[in-house]
Amino acid sequence: MTITVGLQDSAALALGAGILGTGGGGNTYIGRLKLDRQLQLSGKPCPVLTVDQLSDDTLVVGVGMMGAPTVGIEKIEAGNEVARAVQALASHLGREFDALVINEIGGSNALEPLLSALQLGLPVLDGDGMGRAFPELQMDTFSIGGVAASPMALGDCHGNIAIFERLSSPLQAEEWARNLTIEMGGSAALVMSLMTGAEVKATLVRGTLSLALAMGRAVLQSREDKVEAPAAVVARLGNGRVLFEGKIVDVERRTVQGFARGRMRLQAFDIPADEMEIVFQNENLVAWRGGDVQCCVPDLITIVTLEDGTPLGTEMLRYGLRVAVIGMPAVREIKTPAALEVVGPAAFGYGDVSFTPLPGDLLPAAP
Amino acid sequence: MTITVGLQDSAALALGAGILGTGGGGNTYIGRLKLDRQLQLSGKPCPVLTVDQLSDDTLVVGVGMMGAPTVGIEKIEAGNEVARAVQALASHLGREFDALVINEIGGSNALEPLLSALQLGLPVLDGDGMGRAFPELQMDTFSIGGVAASPMALGDCHGNIAIFERLSSPLQAEEWARNLTIEMGGSAALVMSLMTGAEVKATLVRGTLSLALAMGRAVLQSREDKVEAPAAVVARLGNGRVLFEGKIVDVERRTVQGFARGRMRLQAFDIPADEMEIVFQNENLVAWRGGDVQCCVPDLITIVTLEDGTPLGTEMLRYGLRVAVIGMPAVREIKTPAALEVVGPAAFGYGDVSFTPLPGDLLPAAP
Repeated sequence: MTITVGLQDSAALALGAGILGTGGGGNTYIGRLKLDRQLQLSGKPCPVLTVDQLSDDTLVVGVGMMGAPTVGIEKIEAGNEVARAVQALASHLGREFDALVINEIGGSNALEPLLSALQLGLPVLDGDGMGRAFPELQMDTFSIGGVAASPMALGDCHGNIAIFERLSSPLQAEEWARNLTIEMGGSAALVMSLMTGAEVKATLVRGTLSLALAMGRAVLQSREDKVEAPAAVVARLGNGRVLFEGKIVDVERRTVQGFARGRMRLQAFDIPADEMEIVFQNENLVAWRGGDVQCCVPDLITIVTLEDGTPLGTEMLRYGLRVAVIGMPAVREIKTPAALEVVGPAAFGYGDVSFTPLPGDLLPAAP
Repeated sequence: MTITVGLQDSAALALGAGILGTGGGGNTYIGRLKLDRQLQLSGKPCPVLTVDQLSDDTLVVGVGMMGAPTVGIEKIEAGNEVARAVQALASHLGREFDALVINEIGGSNALEPLLSALQLGLPVLDGDGMGRAFPELQMDTFSIGGVAASPMALGDCHGNIAIFERLSSPLQAEEWARNLTIEMGGSAALVMSLMTGAEVKATLVRGTLSLALAMGRAVLQSREDKVEAPAAVVARLGNGRVLFEGKIVDVERRTVQGFARGRMRLQAFDIPADEMEIVFQNENLVAWRGGDVQCCVPDLITIVTLEDGTPLGTEMLRYGLRVAVIGMPAVREIKTPAALEVVGPAAFGYGDVSFTPLPGDLLPAAP
């Protein structure tokens, strides 16, 4: 079965990717405009493969944009920086790629690989390396699973390209590429995690592109049906629950060290003393209510507007928004002991927060 | 005529390169130890070509170390980082190089290309891109002459390699590579300025390796002869003059933004009120005496010990050293209007200093 993503799917995909972005991964409104434009130009949908359709000796590579979402909504892109970086890496290797991999299924980083795949005439895989979005490069199942960070390519909107031919570790990739991304103006095209078909089969979080589409479609449907609240639909499809409903009463946000960092405070509608506080680094990290942790990384904390379930990136937060905070359990691949070393609360500087997983998993176990 | 540089030449070359380094280019004591070790290992001298021995369709590339000399004397190198970066760039291009080019003839950066050439089995050219040392990448005759900054390779002592496949400008090369050099620990192997034989013939400052050797040999000879003061010998061979003799009474030096930056104050022996002040960014930039500019970039300001004419890198400056300050006219290639835009005092932040060239040129005009 070959599935495709076309113009009729992009609204749902953008919505679902925004939900799985947990605040980060890049603004999906802009991401959707770009994808729609490319779908119109290409005149055909983007082919999507399941990873099992790949033979073990194919060559694939992960793609996305790197940087702060606060920069991504302002900085004008060339539109083909990811494709150019893929081509530069292919030329460096002297070998073409067989498919593109979505590094993170959250935010516009779920859409960018489809756009680039259309430009390059390649399929994308149904899956990603996180089952959500995370702010740093070492925080994906490819790196955690032992896939080398190099060779890696970074490109800017002017066509400038850097290839990191050899890097000591995924953490070094993060540090060096973050630094160059800042030099490139705060956002850059990232081509990282070169894998054979066998390697991507061993490390991919499968089915997350389909999940994003399904979530988006369900929210769009709920807007028409007006039976179930959109936030409840999201929680149901994500095997999670609505943690809080209220108004954003304070946002503190800075774009520092290449990230959108900050915290927000939310107040319940009827009980002003009932407050939730959420900290973020591009993505929402930890949510406290009355001093108690309600949800933390790697589980998903997604904020959607109350009236129609539109997910809010951390770049869009502002005083007065009426929202629901949804907690969803992470995919099982990022809850292993090895993964928690990299994506647990301590990895984000919250060593005092212990990860008590929400029950269940974002996706059912593979058959 | 093919000349070579062997063990019997390295002391003179290190001394001459230190003189032309005008404070920067890297510590020549360490540079000489490394070169001697490689000469012993190789069991043969390094071949040196004049640029006219190259055919126009050969491919050459400039090499050296990038970073602050204050870091270079402390950080342990692998010893083959430049050669590895050259190999990575050759592999990226799918083409071997025919010779290495000395990016700057000052400091250990005059020695490093010979060491790498021995490791790679390549010759070096007699000449460089500056006729001295300068702190920033865009400050050479290759960049000024229109040679592209990319592709460029940067490598660290751990074998990590970054290839800048495309860069907008030499200034961008400087900014991005400086940043990565800092990430790499403050010093890194630099492979930049890819040129055909025809391009290097059009842009190389010819004969500066021979000049460094001749200067070094003359100073060594003067130490035996004890007829002419070493500083006077340097000034004579460099067509310059001794600007000042005295004692270093104050040094302010910081390693910031990847450079050794600072200023020093010198006092004349007999007249304490007679002071010279010199500012530096890796290299000595401007020398004032009683408020009047005595010499400034691109002309050479070299500080040598009074007793034996040992050149002092800015990393070696300290209170109490008895020194001579020598001013020498720059090579004519870096005194053109186009070059002065890039290497004149204003380019270093001294817009209030106007460049009044010392009379003459460091080297006679080519026949």
